[in-house]
Amino acid sequence: MDEQKLLKPYVIGLDLGGTNSVFGIVDSRGDIKATTAIKTQSYDTAEGYVKASVDALKIIIDQVGGIEQIKAMGIGAPNGNYYKGTVEFAPNLSWGRDGTVPLADMFSKALGIPVGLTNDANAAAIGEMTYGVARGMKNFIVITLGTGVGSGIVIDGKVVYGSDGFAGELGHVTMVRKDGRLCGCGRRGCLEAYCSATGVARTARELLETTDEESLLREMKPEDITSLDVSIAAEKGDALAKRIFDLTGEMLGRACADFAAFSSPEAFIFFGGLSKAGELIMRPIRESYNANILQVFKGKAKFLMSGLDGSSAAVLGASAIGWDL
Amino acid sequence: MDEQKLLKPYVIGLDLGGTNSVFGIVDSRGDIKATTAIKTQSYDTAEGYVKASVDALKIIIDQVGGIEQIKAMGIGAPNGNYYKGTVEFAPNLSWGRDGTVPLADMFSKALGIPVGLTNDANAAAIGEMTYGVARGMKNFIVITLGTGVGSGIVIDGKVVYGSDGFAGELGHVTMVRKDGRLCGCGRRGCLEAYCSATGVARTARELLETTDEESLLREMKPEDITSLDVSIAAEKGDALAKRIFDLTGEMLGRACADFAAFSSPEAFIFFGGLSKAGELIMRPIRESYNANILQVFKGKAKFLMSGLDGSSAAVLGASAIGWDL
Repeated sequence: MDEQKLLKPYVIGLDLGGTNSVFGIVDSRGDIKATTAIKTQSYDTAEGYVKASVDALKIIIDQVGGIEQIKAMGIGAPNGNYYKGTVEFAPNLSWGRDGTVPLADMFSKALGIPVGLTNDANAAAIGEMTYGVARGMKNFIVITLGTGVGSGIVIDGKVVYGSDGFAGELGHVTMVRKDGRLCGCGRRGCLEAYCSATGVARTARELLETTDEESLLREMKPEDITSLDVSIAAEKGDALAKRIFDLTGEMLGRACADFAAFSSPEAFIFFGGLSKAGELIMRPIRESYNANILQVFKGKAKFLMSGLDGSSAAVLGASAIGWDL
Repeated sequence: MDEQKLLKPYVIGLDLGGTNSVFGIVDSRGDIKATTAIKTQSYDTAEGYVKASVDALKIIIDQVGGIEQIKAMGIGAPNGNYYKGTVEFAPNLSWGRDGTVPLADMFSKALGIPVGLTNDANAAAIGEMTYGVARGMKNFIVITLGTGVGSGIVIDGKVVYGSDGFAGELGHVTMVRKDGRLCGCGRRGCLEAYCSATGVARTARELLETTDEESLLREMKPEDITSLDVSIAAEKGDALAKRIFDLTGEMLGRACADFAAFSSPEAFIFFGGLSKAGELIMRPIRESYNANILQVFKGKAKFLMSGLDGSSAAVLGASAIGWDL
């Protein structure tokens, strides 16, 4: 009985996004017991951001019985470094753009509990392993298809952080060697420039410009087209929109064939906005993978969609870091 | 004193090549105490091969004081599977071509000691970590440039075997997406088709055919040219031969930039025949890597040549497996 009292039943997860910072208090089954949020960009300094976060957190911490009930906190953040607990030169954060913010330390001091931090894709991988479709798996790769393309690589049950804490940037392998699209990273031909939500919208605009093919997408201003519009048009049977997903999936499948040569995972797990297009994108990924994979790996890897509930997946992923602290 | 007697001071290493099988008895410093060899292909069956090996081994085992002095044996073999201790469908082995040979078990039963087995590139990685330039490193990638291009990936101090024991086939990432060279694996555009010793000779023949440029290599029959000839010509200042190394290094540098996005290693270590070309190949590798690497990894990874003595490196690498058994 006494021992049970000592086991703290909850962890805090923070999904630190460019727009919203969403907090959740989560139990070991992945049930979110309480949640709150603040605007990420309303603060000039990291100190201001942490203070506002802690003020918001205090309310939901009290709801679950106080800080004594909380084991630890996990943060999934852009440009997050696991080894150092820092956010480094995050271009989309008003208070994290120009240097290194020791965010894990700052939260740890303010709350008096251990705090771990990693990037959002690694948090997604930990989330899948703790609560999602990767439970029981030791070797898999999560690929996040959102504004960018991120990845969380798990080998032997552990996230790969590499020598510097920044490993797993599979959105930035080079897929097009000649005249590739300019990527946000400043280089050309990256996977992310083609297979992110933004990349898909870019492919749509390219196909609309360079062909005369009829399409529902022609009813929109090209610059307004998003990957969601492409997805909706494809679901209505629009041939051009379907081809956009075929092209995107084809490249992702080829990329996964290269990734298999690296770590031979038992599964690739797709996470994030674009993966909601379901079979529209998963079918061409599988077909292209099977056509490109080295013989020895053929038929081995599974292709799965995230098993975590979309709206809370990022919070769950971040919270899962807390269990290991 | 008694305890010291219990510590067995040696391991056996077997470098199982397509032509020769070289055995060495090695101490913990990497000194080879005794060595022997047999022809790999003189046997119709795996049983015949193992029997001949054990007969040869008995002589050198006696030289170091008997089997009581031997802790274990490690084997580096083509198509070796670490998890299962098997050689699977090895195209270049007369007795291992058509199925799965449980070579570790067979040697273990014949010798009465634990036997571990992995592929030659992973053995090289373990060798570098135990006796070579990777001592003290936790995250690095060994790239073997020989008849093929192999790789041994170390993350957090452990070789990456993946879900099936076959991870680390970086010779078969796709570098040329369109009209790539046919690779021995049956696919097109693999790194190995360009950057192996055979790939270098192929590049030489292509350049000789498609240009009129003067070159020492024109004195040879095109089909007789080997990577060693290219290396000798380049060292004599031959411009065309130097360009072959530039092209080869350029592709290897780009490949390493992609590999860094995966595991962010602290070093890339080059091993095998072609790496003996030294700066002829290392300079273009570094230059291309620096031109292609993602900002966050810039300036972090070292480029090293194997620290193991060429002739015995493969035996040392194989033997090093034995210490962990």
